[in-house]
Amino acid sequence: MMKAYLSEIGGEVDRFLAQCLKRDGVPDILLQAMEYSLLAGGKRLRPALCLVWAEMAGESRKHVLPAAAALECIHTYSLVHDDLPAMDDDDLRRGKPSNHKQFGEAMAILAGDALLTEAFGLLFSCTVSAERILSAGQELVRAAGASGMVGGQVLDMEWTGLDAVQVQDLSRMQELKTGALIRASCVCGAVLGGAGANDVERAEAYGVHMGRAFQITDDILDVTGDEDVLGKPVGSDVNMGKVTYPALLGLDASRRLARDHTDQALASLQPYDNHHAHFLRELAEYILIRSA
Amino acid sequence: MMKAYLSEIGGEVDRFLAQCLKRDGVPDILLQAMEYSLLAGGKRLRPALCLVWAEMAGESRKHVLPAAAALECIHTYSLVHDDLPAMDDDDLRRGKPSNHKQFGEAMAILAGDALLTEAFGLLFSCTVSAERILSAGQELVRAAGASGMVGGQVLDMEWTGLDAVQVQDLSRMQELKTGALIRASCVCGAVLGGAGANDVERAEAYGVHMGRAFQITDDILDVTGDEDVLGKPVGSDVNMGKVTYPALLGLDASRRLARDHTDQALASLQPYDNHHAHFLRELAEYILIRSA
Repeated sequence: MMKAYLSEIGGEVDRFLAQCLKRDGVPDILLQAMEYSLLAGGKRLRPALCLVWAEMAGESRKHVLPAAAALECIHTYSLVHDDLPAMDDDDLRRGKPSNHKQFGEAMAILAGDALLTEAFGLLFSCTVSAERILSAGQELVRAAGASGMVGGQVLDMEWTGLDAVQVQDLSRMQELKTGALIRASCVCGAVLGGAGANDVERAEAYGVHMGRAFQITDDILDVTGDEDVLGKPVGSDVNMGKVTYPALLGLDASRRLARDHTDQALASLQPYDNHHAHFLRELAEYILIRSA
Repeated sequence: MMKAYLSEIGGEVDRFLAQCLKRDGVPDILLQAMEYSLLAGGKRLRPALCLVWAEMAGESRKHVLPAAAALECIHTYSLVHDDLPAMDDDDLRRGKPSNHKQFGEAMAILAGDALLTEAFGLLFSCTVSAERILSAGQELVRAAGASGMVGGQVLDMEWTGLDAVQVQDLSRMQELKTGALIRASCVCGAVLGGAGANDVERAEAYGVHMGRAFQITDDILDVTGDEDVLGKPVGSDVNMGKVTYPALLGLDASRRLARDHTDQALASLQPYDNHHAHFLRELAEYILIRSA
């Protein structure tokens, strides 16, 4: 049931993404570079979270679809910039040459800049009230900006190769770097869907714990995963001197911590008994056992 | 009169910029890198245009001040990214080491990303109606994104060193790269101020022609300017193989073209007879005769 719904939503998102950047006046090569990374596959986790939380609030998916695409644009821009030689210097992403390997560094920087800018344009084009869009926009900035995703990447860089990083530092860094946008995906969906304050809080709690479980499993997969399924070399985080949960806590304790966050994500869904909530429960379990 | 008003507005903008990025949860080094470029001086042309057009529409400056700061953040991020080694590779900006020279490439990329993101947060915090903010936001994305400033930078890169670039190509490139954000500064001010459709159109016409005159004079200053006043080496555009108006048209015809655009900017102000319009007229003349 979860996989069918996820693939239904994913198909909708993919079709929307495939046309949302095409517009008069965009230089061809820039559009190619943007679409190269945006349409490279991926789980479309953030769009799915946004759309399902909007539906939970009683809003039709189609009114919120541009915001779901915006979240994927922001996620994609962050990957493109993180892969740059000055940052993580990754040659591969999702089994293909990374953006700067394909288009050169300057174009990769600009494609990322454009994806970030266009993300806000997509959000603005949602067909819900201006108040809801503004409120979702504020959440998105908090999650993606200096006190969110970008701030987390700065901490990640600053701390790579250091010995003194503790588990609470790692947790803060990952909460900013990946957690914030996953949380924002849920919150933006709820807010755009017109959810009341209590439901927005539950969306946020679900997003926070789902985000933590997601990141811990990511760290675990960097140790135990299959390169072909992951599309990147196993052990790349550790080899780069990055701090990970398995390195700090060991594999077993990392797995228990991820399970614990999944349970807390499930607890936030307790008041709901509809097929959207059912999907979110299955998704939380799936994140824990995924292989990529 | 124009200089007094510009310095009054500039002071207000500078005071606002000096505190608008400080927020809990922003890593110190990131804040430093963002403020290093944002508070490095500059004419604050875009904020001034935004505020004056909002006042022309009858809105109080203070309700729109965050949007004026947003425009300066976007302008600043574009300079930080343009100066990167993979792009123009400039070591100096406004007489100081460029951002990546001071903080390293990775931090300069991230500081630019954060400035762009926070710009939208600033826009969202304007104290006018959500509808006006949304409408200004759409204009801002058009001006800053793939079919605006970023697109223009792509064309600039693609065409640098080419012989076959014509004056209409140069004009299109500059319209995107610098013209679009100057136009958007006027339009966003008018829209946020609650101007009617006719006044928004006049703000746009003023911005378009002011932007062209600005860029042509910039090209002229690259030939005739004083390094100490400019804060960068004279001839740097030409040395990098960039196409410029003086190179294509000669200095005299370039000066005539700039004058022509200034006249068209002035014509768009014809219906107005208040001290805001008077300021905009003086500003248009000043852009033409400036030395930096």
